[in-house]
Amino acid sequence: MDAAEFRKRGKEMVDYVADYLEKIEKRQVFPDVEPGYLRPLIADCAPQDPESFEDVFKDIEKIIMPGVTHWHSPYFFAYFPAACSFPALLADMLCGGIGCVGFSWAASPACTELETVMLDWLGKMVNLPEEFLAGKDGQGGGVIQGSASEATLIALLAARTKTIKQVQSEKPELTEAEIMGRLVAYASDQAHSSVERAALIGAVKIKSVPSDETFSVCGSALKKVLDEDKAAGLIPFFFCATLGTTPCCSFDKLLELGPICNKENIWMHIDAAYAGSAFICPEFRHLLNGVEFADSFNFNPHKWLLVNFDCSAMWVKKRSDLIGAFKLEPLYLQHHHQESGLVTDYRHWQIPLGRRFRSLKLWFVLRMYGVKGLQEHIRKHIRLSHQFEHLVLQDERFEICAEVVLGLVCFRLKGSNELNEALLKSINDAKKIHLVPCHLREKFVLRFAICSRTVESTHIKFAWQHISQLATDLLKTWGQNHHQQ
Amino acid sequence: MDAAEFRKRGKEMVDYVADYLEKIEKRQVFPDVEPGYLRPLIADCAPQDPESFEDVFKDIEKIIMPGVTHWHSPYFFAYFPAACSFPALLADMLCGGIGCVGFSWAASPACTELETVMLDWLGKMVNLPEEFLAGKDGQGGGVIQGSASEATLIALLAARTKTIKQVQSEKPELTEAEIMGRLVAYASDQAHSSVERAALIGAVKIKSVPSDETFSVCGSALKKVLDEDKAAGLIPFFFCATLGTTPCCSFDKLLELGPICNKENIWMHIDAAYAGSAFICPEFRHLLNGVEFADSFNFNPHKWLLVNFDCSAMWVKKRSDLIGAFKLEPLYLQHHHQESGLVTDYRHWQIPLGRRFRSLKLWFVLRMYGVKGLQEHIRKHIRLSHQFEHLVLQDERFEICAEVVLGLVCFRLKGSNELNEALLKSINDAKKIHLVPCHLREKFVLRFAICSRTVESTHIKFAWQHISQLATDLLKTWGQNHHQQ
Repeated sequence: MDAAEFRKRGKEMVDYVADYLEKIEKRQVFPDVEPGYLRPLIADCAPQDPESFEDVFKDIEKIIMPGVTHWHSPYFFAYFPAACSFPALLADMLCGGIGCVGFSWAASPACTELETVMLDWLGKMVNLPEEFLAGKDGQGGGVIQGSASEATLIALLAARTKTIKQVQSEKPELTEAEIMGRLVAYASDQAHSSVERAALIGAVKIKSVPSDETFSVCGSALKKVLDEDKAAGLIPFFFCATLGTTPCCSFDKLLELGPICNKENIWMHIDAAYAGSAFICPEFRHLLNGVEFADSFNFNPHKWLLVNFDCSAMWVKKRSDLIGAFKLEPLYLQHHHQESGLVTDYRHWQIPLGRRFRSLKLWFVLRMYGVKGLQEHIRKHIRLSHQFEHLVLQDERFEICAEVVLGLVCFRLKGSNELNEALLKSINDAKKIHLVPCHLREKFVLRFAICSRTVESTHIKFAWQHISQLATDLLKTWGQNHHQQ
Repeated sequence: MDAAEFRKRGKEMVDYVADYLEKIEKRQVFPDVEPGYLRPLIADCAPQDPESFEDVFKDIEKIIMPGVTHWHSPYFFAYFPAACSFPALLADMLCGGIGCVGFSWAASPACTELETVMLDWLGKMVNLPEEFLAGKDGQGGGVIQGSASEATLIALLAARTKTIKQVQSEKPELTEAEIMGRLVAYASDQAHSSVERAALIGAVKIKSVPSDETFSVCGSALKKVLDEDKAAGLIPFFFCATLGTTPCCSFDKLLELGPICNKENIWMHIDAAYAGSAFICPEFRHLLNGVEFADSFNFNPHKWLLVNFDCSAMWVKKRSDLIGAFKLEPLYLQHHHQESGLVTDYRHWQIPLGRRFRSLKLWFVLRMYGVKGLQEHIRKHIRLSHQFEHLVLQDERFEICAEVVLGLVCFRLKGSNELNEALLKSINDAKKIHLVPCHLREKFVLRFAICSRTVESTHIKFAWQHISQLATDLLKTWGQNHHQQ
């Protein structure tokens, strides 16, 4: 395919994507296919000779779309939102075209420098303390990671290196393996599984801190486990606070936890993967109070800020802590500017070496929506979640299971877990909308997350009527079955 | 921006990208900017109100392009190639439009299933042993990682978990920390820095195995360090063999190393990040002989197989080894198909949780080029590297520093390292072409890598004439300076 054909096919693809997103509502949100559906539809091996674009293109509807879960359908209420916007799509086209690999400043200065400035823009939008910004000569700064999981892992590894060095300087008789054996990381019992995974990868112990009745970790809970562990000779070194937990969007109490971490010399990382985008609205910024105590902070514009995946924003107060954990300098990656102090080599900030020009997406989205446009998007989603909450509350058969703060509603039928499992199954089997569940303590709970950029009040009403009707049908049969038993 | 405007702007962006790539030769390959150039050109913070697409668009040439290193210029000979092709760009547009996050089968079945089948296609193209393929019910299979660094890390972590379990079952008196303290990973002294980094992250020792005079690790070298370490009570558990090292594209001797690793119960991972793409040509496939002894194998189609970054292909013989290292199952990620055996949940195969629909790029590229088209691309690059090699060999002032096997030529002026550093500086300061150096033993060496998809014989001739002229100029002054001293 030459440039001339790309011009033609690229424009067809633009129209296809525009059509797909404009008419996505008409597609069934969750696919009908069974595991293994795709292999029989496709050749056994790659063709020897080139096929035409037309041949490939027609297979999109034939082979791919029947197996797609439509994350941008206004009937998709599962997981958390995955961002998708036209400005971000345009930026990604440009990113692909430039096709640079930005592991060092010299590998493409614009790629590095735009990222630093965009993370400053974004940091200012959520009113991060100055220390987290790169500015012209700050010690902190931001970086785009691929996912919140990576940000958590990077923070944990930086904390591990820092603590090992500290302990070794105080107790030179301890070997690194001995110190490692005593390190403990902490996170809420509501924290995302990626925190446990980070500890697994980093080969350190991790303990759950019990959350309170609002599913939040408070200071006293953390203090209790820290005291016990220190008494047992362990070395607490890392606490991952969550703002907006995955099960129910609860918030750990930073203002209580931060001072404890600071006093105990524990790295506090804040994972606000989903909730962080809401902090661009002044009325929700208070949820981030206490960030001033943190060492690192992360949220995902690719979830809720209309920047297509992947764009996970991470800031640290001291970039030297990150770089200290990873820096290795083979000659083929050195360049003559790198000692100037003005230069950032982002490869030292992340797990992979290579990186795409992802800051273009932030640049396009922040400029073409403006702060106000993005605030509007966040506020609409939160309005819609409260609309759904009110509908649930008006139906006495149901209960709300956690405070609705942002765009997630946790609800269930009053009754057994089995009943709610059956309700979820009937919802997802009908495939008119799509939800996923969670556990809150012993309860099986349905999560209703406002996801799509184009979801409106009418979709919420439809979803509720549908759920309500399925509940009615279910309760009818359920009662009979129960009676027969 | 609504869909109607996206249709318009998307088509403008397609033309911009096509223009950029068609005329890239006219742009200076390496930018003139100094560190910190971008910040003064850009506002201090994000705009409150939306800006127009035109405003953003005109800043691409004004702010971004002056700071871009043009990786796809036919005058770019630095690092290794970064793939870029029109079919891959089209697939990425589709990937962005669908915008699904494929962490589990249910999150988008097509995203998972196409990946499994595409990795089978690709595995067959390089003639991987059947055990590495997923097939319909194999124990192995492939996955797309973001980078070779991640593949190495994942392999090392899987090996770590496997070894710890084994050792614990044999010697239950040892704690995990004690075992960890004895584990040792190995790689060539020519291996990429990401291997050392993986060991750093995984908190295990790593040792360099001395390469021979061809910069390859042979069996006896590995055996020697293994014997020493076992005698010292250490536990060798992981060897990363490199096919196509970054400094000079040398190849570790798999046929000697593999049987040793198998006998010693050491996980052998093969990092063929750059070289792997060449194995689709039967005449280069012998370089992969011995892969049958490996536990995992990785190469980067995003380097040399015309699939835009990121697409790093990794295969394992036993998927259960990977999954065993990472599997955590929160309820919100469970789905009712997952126990069926037919289903792959790729989140257990990688560091991040989220993932884009990257297999679309493989599907588009493999079909629209066909195996023959891709072979042609590889063969052209290798022909051009030999052309450059011959030009160097005809000039008695220069020497070739390592065998030219694929698309990389390592060369230098006969003389001191300072002289060669000065030559490289004059080349890169002139900015007509762009190269990076490496060290081979004590020698400072220039790397000439064939990179661009559109590079032709004329560019090679131009590059050589340019280098040769700069060498002449340099030697003139150098002689005088040397004489004066």
